[in-house]
Amino acid sequence: MIVLREVLGSELRRVRSAQGRTLRDVSSSAAVSLGYLSEVERGEKEASSELLLSICGALHVRLSDLLLTVADRVSELETPPIAHAA
Amino acid sequence: MIVLREVLGSELRRVRSAQGRTLRDVSSSAAVSLGYLSEVERGEKEASSELLLSICGALHVRLSDLLLTVADRVSELETPPIAHAA
Repeated sequence: MIVLREVLGSELRRVRSAQGRTLRDVSSSAAVSLGYLSEVERGEKEASSELLLSICGALHVRLSDLLLTVADRVSELETPPIAHAA
Repeated sequence: MIVLREVLGSELRRVRSAQGRTLRDVSSSAAVSLGYLSEVERGEKEASSELLLSICGALHVRLSDLLLTVADRVSELETPPIAHAA
């Protein structure tokens, strides 16, 4: 089953890592607790709309761009594996 | 401020209405309560990942397609108004 919060969390972590930033830095910029951000990144907690926007702001990414990337990842998971000829 | 759950809820309502279906029909197919679906559509409640997937299934739309449309709507809201020459 595709779990959106896991795809979203994974993408948020990827963006943060690509920027070489720590959970502490981004959580502080986003004014969310470090524990909350960590749980969101691990797909253990649904991010509220307000906090997701705040995290996007802290990462300097547009919410729409994040959603586009997440839509791509979800699409890959939805696509059935290619059947190989026997 | 852009509130993702409002954009998402509005799009879910639009899809349901375009199919000429009732809250009762879709909530029953998705196995969510009518009240919950109604709150989600009005942007009053965050849909959990599991229930969002279930609602998509009931509406016969792919989660990735829903996310793409929502990303477009969010992008429109992010775009600053065009400045007109005085």
